[in-house]
Amino acid sequence: MSERSIGVTLLGCGVVGGGVVNILTQQRDLLRQRTGLTFDIRHIVVRDAGKHRGDLPVPLTTDAAAAIDDPGTQIVVELIGGTTTAGTHIERALKLGKPVVTANKSLLSARGGELFALARKHDTCIAFEASCGGGVPIVESLMKGLLANRIDALVGIVNGTCNVILTRMTRNGWTYDEALKEAQRLGFAEADPTLDVSGRDAAQKLALLASLAFNVGVAESDIHVEGIDTIQPTDIQFARDLGYVIKLLAIAERHVQGVGSKDPHHPGQAKPGEFLNLRVHPTLVHKDDVLAEVGGSFNAISVYGHALGHALFYGRGAGQMPTASAVVSDLLGVALGTTPLAFKQLRIFPDTTPRASVLPFHDLQSRYYLRLMVKDQPGVMGQVSQILGNHGISLSAILQRETDDGQNVPIVITTHRATEGPMRRALDQINALPTITPPTVCLRIIDQPKEFAGG
Amino acid sequence: MSERSIGVTLLGCGVVGGGVVNILTQQRDLLRQRTGLTFDIRHIVVRDAGKHRGDLPVPLTTDAAAAIDDPGTQIVVELIGGTTTAGTHIERALKLGKPVVTANKSLLSARGGELFALARKHDTCIAFEASCGGGVPIVESLMKGLLANRIDALVGIVNGTCNVILTRMTRNGWTYDEALKEAQRLGFAEADPTLDVSGRDAAQKLALLASLAFNVGVAESDIHVEGIDTIQPTDIQFARDLGYVIKLLAIAERHVQGVGSKDPHHPGQAKPGEFLNLRVHPTLVHKDDVLAEVGGSFNAISVYGHALGHALFYGRGAGQMPTASAVVSDLLGVALGTTPLAFKQLRIFPDTTPRASVLPFHDLQSRYYLRLMVKDQPGVMGQVSQILGNHGISLSAILQRETDDGQNVPIVITTHRATEGPMRRALDQINALPTITPPTVCLRIIDQPKEFAGG
Repeated sequence: MSERSIGVTLLGCGVVGGGVVNILTQQRDLLRQRTGLTFDIRHIVVRDAGKHRGDLPVPLTTDAAAAIDDPGTQIVVELIGGTTTAGTHIERALKLGKPVVTANKSLLSARGGELFALARKHDTCIAFEASCGGGVPIVESLMKGLLANRIDALVGIVNGTCNVILTRMTRNGWTYDEALKEAQRLGFAEADPTLDVSGRDAAQKLALLASLAFNVGVAESDIHVEGIDTIQPTDIQFARDLGYVIKLLAIAERHVQGVGSKDPHHPGQAKPGEFLNLRVHPTLVHKDDVLAEVGGSFNAISVYGHALGHALFYGRGAGQMPTASAVVSDLLGVALGTTPLAFKQLRIFPDTTPRASVLPFHDLQSRYYLRLMVKDQPGVMGQVSQILGNHGISLSAILQRETDDGQNVPIVITTHRATEGPMRRALDQINALPTITPPTVCLRIIDQPKEFAGG
Repeated sequence: MSERSIGVTLLGCGVVGGGVVNILTQQRDLLRQRTGLTFDIRHIVVRDAGKHRGDLPVPLTTDAAAAIDDPGTQIVVELIGGTTTAGTHIERALKLGKPVVTANKSLLSARGGELFALARKHDTCIAFEASCGGGVPIVESLMKGLLANRIDALVGIVNGTCNVILTRMTRNGWTYDEALKEAQRLGFAEADPTLDVSGRDAAQKLALLASLAFNVGVAESDIHVEGIDTIQPTDIQFARDLGYVIKLLAIAERHVQGVGSKDPHHPGQAKPGEFLNLRVHPTLVHKDDVLAEVGGSFNAISVYGHALGHALFYGRGAGQMPTASAVVSDLLGVALGTTPLAFKQLRIFPDTTPRASVLPFHDLQSRYYLRLMVKDQPGVMGQVSQILGNHGISLSAILQRETDDGQNVPIVITTHRATEGPMRRALDQINALPTITPPTVCLRIIDQPKEFAGG
């Protein structure tokens, strides 16, 4: 068994970069013993080389081009983030035939197809385990362990920040603002948390995961996205009374409309009559659902395969060392040659697959949670249930609490499975009732695993 | 991207074999589209070719040697099970340089080192994802996604049969015998369930998983094993009252005694002063632990990595299609070349690593659950707690229920962390008390994740 040294250039040395340096230096013996490889960090490229970053094995540099071009650099690790500089550097590396390891979901969800094609053209590869689910090896599983399965659904908690905030709101009874401030104080949320709390970060990860799972190109704009910043403590409490927990879920589900004819050239993909239902939104999950137990900064991704059935991958979705664990795993895969070999042969990346056929969001079928603020007058519930009934929506439960406020009484309704379009039209009519104080809160409910099993 | 056809011989065509045939034929287009590969089943070898086995793509044969030797056979899939015939056939294939895919944990836990070495000698490989955790891709994760981590512990529900039985006992209040009969009726337990309910099957899987995780050779005989056949409904009920659920767990944990000097040649392995604690036994897990939610035939494996922290892999641990999913995943990995490449380079298989240093079981540290049958006399608890105290064991809770039976009152005690040896000696003394009706039930409690995090 041979011993080899691999020259690595790190682009960016923030939190995760520091973790990568830590593993490559502290676990040098472990990695060499397991793989015969040692990683020689040749360059660490940062924007401001004067900023002190602790104990690093090489001097910092600002010259990314020189670092990438150095013949001693065999693999480039991009941890800058964002879509501009990072994209330029990755292109440079790929054009030199140098493999790239990246955690950059924004860039890959926006330009993955193009960059994967560039890698392929120059006979190299992109590895991106760290871009989704932090340290959870979900990308690798979609590239191997799940490969024998037609995937029916993928349902995940993929944003640690939102999960930290919702967990605090649920366990401590806090408001969104209180929970956000605490998450910021603890380093789980950025000063500007928009990308996370809007659901966009989850959507970018979903775009990547759904591409691999369903073998189609998915863009962030294909995904219906709702964030968590409007979630109120009262809804978390009502959900609990009904036996549910509110989580921000990213969901991709194969949806069959009628019987489509099979396309023999792309059997893993959406066929005529088959669409992908793609969405990120706060969701009521039953308290017995394993996803309900996923707290704090943990991520969990449920996958439903036609052969495997329900599987779940759980672990730290963010943070220095978990993400660094995924980056170093990719470094090992690239250096051992297994990742390039898989990248070259697998036809599951968005540069080799057609665009997804996306189910229009108004065709979504779901159960719903509604909270109406009702001026306490007799007959209101009759009007509301008549409107819902007119749109083909039937109720499954009603919950009304006693209240001090004589003006507005919250009434919570859960529905059986209904369609999004009619639900929206019904809500417009309900909100227009003189006895209702709008807006009516509308959240979706999923019933894992039975909703997705064998879908 | 090239298209290739791969000739496969199946040894054995029982439940799992039928599932493999199903995926290779029904999902032929899907597999080809994703990988460029089609699998051509050349031979299906069975003991009795007259036995009807449904719709198969080739006639059955009993001539294993001819099937393996056929130059058209490029990969051999062994699904016979057991250690005799299966071993002979695998050796034959390996000596011809043909890679083997197997689900055979008995054989690999008994003779893995030898067979891996044989594969290496003939420049081929053994793939064995299906041997542990059914369809859950845990072997692959230990070979890639977790590779950057020093593993601190691995804690799993890895036997579906036991989990089905314990789940029924817990949810329905059934006795062991009632639950076993139901499991047998539903096909979750064999007519002779000994291998499963004794904990041996779980120990064989643990031997394999611990070998990969800790980079040492582990034999089944290294593992302390207790089965589930003595578990009584009353203990399941007491456990519930205390907030716990009883699960059969397979546990491998790095145990550091004092400060050992580092061995630079085997840094992933137990160092001087480091031992592996290896055990399979019924265990009380807290109801908030994700493992408590793992019901029926599902498996789940918790892994604690120094960088990743706590991760969990969950899915169907047995059954036709989940296991076939893992077998076909291995077929793909072997045919794509990624599995042979990893097998060749990684030094984590038991033919390339030293034997484990196993912590003597009497040195195990654990919390305990004790159920004593006490003749209801004053002063008994004083005697019991004095005996425990004399052995350095302190109580954390006591639970006594009213009972109709004036003769024998069950008293349940949970302890703080104690050592197995002193606990055994204390139990001998307790059982010898004239006021106690032996045997006292003794189970272990784990507190995931805090017990293992950063161990």
